[in-house]
Amino acid sequence: MRLATRRDGSRDGRLMVVRRDGEALLDAGPAARTLQDALDRWEEAEPKLRALAESLDAGRAAGVPLDPHALHSPLPRAYEWVDGSAYLNHVRLVRKARGAEPPPTLESDPLVYQGGSGVLLGPTDDLPLPDPGWGLDLEGEVCCILGDVPRGTRAADAGRHVRLLCLANDVTLRNLVPGELAKGFGFFQSKPATAFSPFAVTPDEVGPAWRDGRLHLRMTVRWNGQVVGTVDAGPEMHFSFFQLLEHVARTRGFTAGTILGSGTVSNADRARGWSCIAEQRALEMIDGGAPRTRFLAAGDTVEIEVRDGEGRNVFGTISQRVRAP
Amino acid sequence: MRLATRRDGSRDGRLMVVRRDGEALLDAGPAARTLQDALDRWEEAEPKLRALAESLDAGRAAGVPLDPHALHSPLPRAYEWVDGSAYLNHVRLVRKARGAEPPPTLESDPLVYQGGSGVLLGPTDDLPLPDPGWGLDLEGEVCCILGDVPRGTRAADAGRHVRLLCLANDVTLRNLVPGELAKGFGFFQSKPATAFSPFAVTPDEVGPAWRDGRLHLRMTVRWNGQVVGTVDAGPEMHFSFFQLLEHVARTRGFTAGTILGSGTVSNADRARGWSCIAEQRALEMIDGGAPRTRFLAAGDTVEIEVRDGEGRNVFGTISQRVRAP
Repeated sequence: MRLATRRDGSRDGRLMVVRRDGEALLDAGPAARTLQDALDRWEEAEPKLRALAESLDAGRAAGVPLDPHALHSPLPRAYEWVDGSAYLNHVRLVRKARGAEPPPTLESDPLVYQGGSGVLLGPTDDLPLPDPGWGLDLEGEVCCILGDVPRGTRAADAGRHVRLLCLANDVTLRNLVPGELAKGFGFFQSKPATAFSPFAVTPDEVGPAWRDGRLHLRMTVRWNGQVVGTVDAGPEMHFSFFQLLEHVARTRGFTAGTILGSGTVSNADRARGWSCIAEQRALEMIDGGAPRTRFLAAGDTVEIEVRDGEGRNVFGTISQRVRAP
Repeated sequence: MRLATRRDGSRDGRLMVVRRDGEALLDAGPAARTLQDALDRWEEAEPKLRALAESLDAGRAAGVPLDPHALHSPLPRAYEWVDGSAYLNHVRLVRKARGAEPPPTLESDPLVYQGGSGVLLGPTDDLPLPDPGWGLDLEGEVCCILGDVPRGTRAADAGRHVRLLCLANDVTLRNLVPGELAKGFGFFQSKPATAFSPFAVTPDEVGPAWRDGRLHLRMTVRWNGQVVGTVDAGPEMHFSFFQLLEHVARTRGFTAGTILGSGTVSNADRARGWSCIAEQRALEMIDGGAPRTRFLAAGDTVEIEVRDGEGRNVFGTISQRVRAP
């Protein structure tokens, strides 16, 4: 089952179920008004949502044609956005580029940060860039949307708390990072609002590609229409979502609707390309002493999507344009 | 006007208005079902809430007697919990205690971190302590609950976005902090769920004590019934809430219901005591080379409150017990 949130002028939008071909949506009102509403009482809402999706697929309900611009983030505002950094190739490259050492516990203790979650961007929302000197970068990520997670949940039990999967463009103001991290309290100004994919999907939608807490599919990233990365989200995710969940739940619980991110998808094989500019710049510095690739500029477009074995665009496409306000 | 949230088995509880004497509550249903609901449409809800409070004060509505244990956090879950560290005496002492230097920009660039906001504790909820070795500490803080804040809001315009004031016990697992900050991504496991005061109040409730973005009143902190601090929340708040708000809004906006914290209230005058154990331990290290005061242990109680010039308990009392699960 695939779900989306349609703009209706309200803060949380209207929950919609998505037809199998991705071309039509049906109002999920009879099951749940909003995605948060559905997540708050998932056991009750899920079968009703699946029944609506079946009626749409079978043509018993007509639905409305998909208009990506009418879609908000699946959760236009969320109670938490917790982002890992589970692809260690990314951590090593980006830290190298800013002259910082990876922590000695890199391979045993996950890196996570708490992101802002009150204002999230829809899949086609512009990326505002008030100051080009901030160094706007994209970051292609896979995310889980969670149900209620009790404190002390272990990785072995984590799978049952994963309700939905989606993608994110976790934009970063790269030039604000070093000063901010030097203060010791983590990211804040360097992480503006994050954008999410059109659809959030139940894990069964990707079949065996969802296994061991990882999404074993490739993410395609385009910058101004050019493919810059076709990165594999599976094997190089050093900490699985289940391990990330155990890590974050060590000292507190999480409410339904918490979004847990993988961190920037990154592969050691350079032929796969990249899903954030900082990695390309890091490679250029390593190879030639200086970065050559610029960060995002007003007018640039960014697209992020994941296709399955049949070529189906599982989550829809994040498709954003950078805008000077 | 003072507001509270009563437990009713739902995730967000029932919004209540508080009688002037703090001894009775009236269901705010006719104005707003929950505090988030009221904040989402404040212009419309506020006058209705004030009318309900007036009818309760005038005895035209009976209300129900206050039972602090029936109260949740004013916002049982919030879209963001953003916490500053605006009392520089605290920053200097705590960093000294863990052998870390304050950042060189300490006096010009506010320290803030993004906290977890999906699970917040009510004013009398137990503080769970699964592992005494984690070093559980209290932190008495003042908070603003905000309306919608556009990106780029300046300090001069910040006051209009402050809807309510409340207190927090921003508990910290002190022994998890150094390892976590060394990784570079800020606090996560070291910050379990934060607790909030019984009442959230409109700034006019404290009259001229709310000025220049600071609460000019004293916070009393008791540990196992003994007063350990009577700290002044006003003059030593180096960055006002308005300056903190400008800082956090530099690169993104915030949705209504975001909670902005002051950081641990702290005074340079030792006679005022303290609102977190880490400061007392830091002073002991500076004076005698080693900390003598222990962190919180199972069975301990913590109370935090603020009284105004007439001795009125403005926000009610945060009154928690530490519990080994």
